[in-house]
Amino acid sequence: MEKAVIIASGGMDSTTLLYDILQQGYVVHALSINYNQRHVKELEFARLTCGRLNVPHKVVDLSVLGEELLFASALTVKDRALPEGDYNAENMKLTVVPNRNMILLSLAVGYAISIGAKKVFYGAHSGDHAIYPDCRREFVEAMRRAIILADWKSVELEAPYLGLDKADIAVKGKELGVDYALTWTCYNGAEKACGKCGACRERQEAFRKAKMIDPLEYETAIHKI
Amino acid sequence: MEKAVIIASGGMDSTTLLYDILQQGYVVHALSINYNQRHVKELEFARLTCGRLNVPHKVVDLSVLGEELLFASALTVKDRALPEGDYNAENMKLTVVPNRNMILLSLAVGYAISIGAKKVFYGAHSGDHAIYPDCRREFVEAMRRAIILADWKSVELEAPYLGLDKADIAVKGKELGVDYALTWTCYNGAEKACGKCGACRERQEAFRKAKMIDPLEYETAIHKI
Repeated sequence: MEKAVIIASGGMDSTTLLYDILQQGYVVHALSINYNQRHVKELEFARLTCGRLNVPHKVVDLSVLGEELLFASALTVKDRALPEGDYNAENMKLTVVPNRNMILLSLAVGYAISIGAKKVFYGAHSGDHAIYPDCRREFVEAMRRAIILADWKSVELEAPYLGLDKADIAVKGKELGVDYALTWTCYNGAEKACGKCGACRERQEAFRKAKMIDPLEYETAIHKI
Repeated sequence: MEKAVIIASGGMDSTTLLYDILQQGYVVHALSINYNQRHVKELEFARLTCGRLNVPHKVVDLSVLGEELLFASALTVKDRALPEGDYNAENMKLTVVPNRNMILLSLAVGYAISIGAKKVFYGAHSGDHAIYPDCRREFVEAMRRAIILADWKSVELEAPYLGLDKADIAVKGKELGVDYALTWTCYNGAEKACGKCGACRERQEAFRKAKMIDPLEYETAIHKI
């Protein structure tokens, strides 16, 4: 049984991937990083899913990163206004946490080496590309190469959803029996998802395209596109 | 005046590089990471050098990494015996902190993006290659590629000492007026450098080859090679 590490954000994509690789037979260790994200609530959802699936889950508190190092982003700085509107709009670029994915991947690889896992799974998908440079296939390929070289015992980076969009992922999750009530997408960390931020809208559109019902409760009615 | 970030460990290599790029005219911001390394004392030396050179210096406390995530290494786990002997010996591989350099680089790049710096400097040199996979030129090249792709505003990774050994660096430092009394190399964090660990021996050999006097005090007499 091969050991693998997954970066578990508590969102739809990494949660679906977690179900997926468990079904493929990996012995999965989930890793979540608290980087003082505004929506740190998502990590609680990662914990609930891992608990249900009996997956060991490590949450590392690197909130100092958001406070001290990566201060340029609306996703970590609470007194900046979070942009509303489409996920693809220019102003969503304000939500980019500088170099977040490389940081998460590098930590996940360090953890994988520590526990003797050969693979790191990561849920980047095609819908992220327009906004997040570090979700692009070229970036993932370059990281894959660097990660193989980073240790004598090579770790492989796997991002199997790079060719899928969020609706494809929802369909896959339905087949896998994913409980999307235990996933969190909204960039605001309020009790209910806001339904207005770019992340909520993208999620709602994915469910609509996949002809599925989103089990989450929203503050505002579903956004009609 | 171009802004640059340097990963400052407090050791000979990054300290020399710091003097070097200041002389080249960069506006330098130094970054040090406390990852609970056994020789965390090195960061105090980084602080002293930055103070003397009027370089802003940020120390980020990620000691949780050493405690929780990267538990495989003798460099962070204090109840493991630290190997003595040559820097090149097989047992020095125990001092590899899993994926340390990728983690440090990814944080430095995040910081660079945050403050609008276009370059990240890093003092890897040829003597590290045999032990540390993440000091190899192929690794640095792969990281350089990933780092360029990680953000819309590309950051460039510069590792100008990759082709030098530690003696070459000492010679360069002499020309640049580096005060090596303010650098720390020993893996043990005692008051004086131990003179016995692989790092001390490599340093002493570099000074010997460069026909320079090491201003540091050692617990034991200089190791004759």
